[in-house]
Amino acid sequence: MTSGTDRDASLADVGEFGLIGRISEIVAATAPGEDVLVGPGDDAAVLRVRKGHVVVSTDVMVEGRHFRRDWADAADVGARAAAQNLSDINAMGGRAQWLTVGLAAPADLPAQWALDFTRGFAEECAKVGAGLVGGDVSRADQVVVSVTAIGACTVSPVLRSGAAPGDVVAICGRQGWAAGGLAVLGRGFRSPRVLVEAYRRPEPPYDAGVVAAEAGATAMVDISDGLLAEAGHVAEASGVSIDVATASFEVPEPLLAVGQATGADPLRFILAGGDDHALLATFPADVALPDGWTRIGTVGAAPAEGAPRVTVDGASYDGPTGWSHF
Amino acid sequence: MTSGTDRDASLADVGEFGLIGRISEIVAATAPGEDVLVGPGDDAAVLRVRKGHVVVSTDVMVEGRHFRRDWADAADVGARAAAQNLSDINAMGGRAQWLTVGLAAPADLPAQWALDFTRGFAEECAKVGAGLVGGDVSRADQVVVSVTAIGACTVSPVLRSGAAPGDVVAICGRQGWAAGGLAVLGRGFRSPRVLVEAYRRPEPPYDAGVVAAEAGATAMVDISDGLLAEAGHVAEASGVSIDVATASFEVPEPLLAVGQATGADPLRFILAGGDDHALLATFPADVALPDGWTRIGTVGAAPAEGAPRVTVDGASYDGPTGWSHF
Repeated sequence: MTSGTDRDASLADVGEFGLIGRISEIVAATAPGEDVLVGPGDDAAVLRVRKGHVVVSTDVMVEGRHFRRDWADAADVGARAAAQNLSDINAMGGRAQWLTVGLAAPADLPAQWALDFTRGFAEECAKVGAGLVGGDVSRADQVVVSVTAIGACTVSPVLRSGAAPGDVVAICGRQGWAAGGLAVLGRGFRSPRVLVEAYRRPEPPYDAGVVAAEAGATAMVDISDGLLAEAGHVAEASGVSIDVATASFEVPEPLLAVGQATGADPLRFILAGGDDHALLATFPADVALPDGWTRIGTVGAAPAEGAPRVTVDGASYDGPTGWSHF
Repeated sequence: MTSGTDRDASLADVGEFGLIGRISEIVAATAPGEDVLVGPGDDAAVLRVRKGHVVVSTDVMVEGRHFRRDWADAADVGARAAAQNLSDINAMGGRAQWLTVGLAAPADLPAQWALDFTRGFAEECAKVGAGLVGGDVSRADQVVVSVTAIGACTVSPVLRSGAAPGDVVAICGRQGWAAGGLAVLGRGFRSPRVLVEAYRRPEPPYDAGVVAAEAGATAMVDISDGLLAEAGHVAEASGVSIDVATASFEVPEPLLAVGQATGADPLRFILAGGDDHALLATFPADVALPDGWTRIGTVGAAPAEGAPRVTVDGASYDGPTGWSHF
């Protein structure tokens, strides 16, 4: 893919095996991931598992729904696709090691897009020492990316179901920035640039999951679909209620600016935004929160019949809480 | 999903979490798979790995390309999606244990289709004691299914690259039946029924991979894209040539009938057909082939410059050899 002509080649031009061959070169040139005995190219990858437990997660991204090719370049989309799966492993208190990608795409998609996507994907994986070990490509009407991440836990995985009344709720990582960036892009703007970049290249706190698990987190989730929505998942899985205190959040200046420009309450980006992949966890009240974690609420008993699982400043919240995939 | 009204509900009607909840019920009611500590519903599944090596494979199926909803019911499509991934693990000499599914689908897809798909998928997994442990759903313009299978090998995995000159080439399982069924459906017919059923519900020889590995197979692949195409993959990965002897094949009566009706050489279904997921392997010449395996050719030295990797009856073959995904 070095000549000008090659750069214009479509997937149909290079063909399935041409594409796979070029993807394999990119993968071979980046971090292979530890303990990969056989990488892409055979019927299956062969991996050496050192620990007794593995954690596995799958996420789907669809063009026009989770990304737009005119809003982010292919490497950014690749990095985001990796990030959201690496983040799921992070949220278990684990460390991702190996990923596979199922890519469906139109025949007229520039092959360079798929290669740049792969490069961005592999770069993001390399941040945690993980590698792309396999996948499949097929023709479809729109780009659909399905990523599976496999990781290892050195401590017991932290589930959604362990929160107990009296625990504190805390988050780690930027929250609301990506949602602010998405709002900016949706209005046809490109600034504040820091928010647009936050949307294009999230920076999940990849080291925070293991540290939280070791510190004694009782429940943990990554905020991919909205802070209140994810708090609701933890509350429901744990059979508790959660109250979020808005005074906990310092609304960053760029979000204030977007709020002013769009007439939206900037706090809504924080409460309902997802794509930053911050972590939300609960800790026993006597645990000193690890560095980087901020207390944002408390865990209460199961709500009364008909009462909400999640409240904001002690009251029902009637704004959007997150993202629905249908 | 028991009332008539519910059966007509779309994915948009039931919503993402409604769909996931119902899928989880189906998964819980079928074989969970061994060593699943945490199944669907958290950020990741948690699995106990008993052996030191795991094998991982991902395959994509796209509506209109790999299946049509009017040619096979949802449970059949689900079974096929599982089968092609279970077969990849089989082709390594391994046994599949855990699978995840990324499902992208239009909002107006009947939710019942997704549930029946899941049921067929889980039933196929149960044939080998594997379980569905996670996944994701999202909205898209067409149905795209990406499946990842994770398995274990008790012997060294059999790669594509181990064939040596002098080895014999053998296959195990029905071959050409599904391609015949597809040709029938493509002409608007529904018989011979045995071929249409072979296309809708392949019956891969799931026990054959481990047995071949234990018997000393030097290379192995599952025939998902066409016998000659897959033989070519083995020949290229191994740096050898392969000659296939057509006299090895007994063309079954239903394929003869379809050949007569369509004017096609029925041997082409066998040489270029894929979806049966038969296994192709090479064995040292002094190995007695395990039960169910049929010798179909021989491995030779690397071909001369410009000569084909794979020949049929000692000569170049100019018919289709398999399936291209772009």
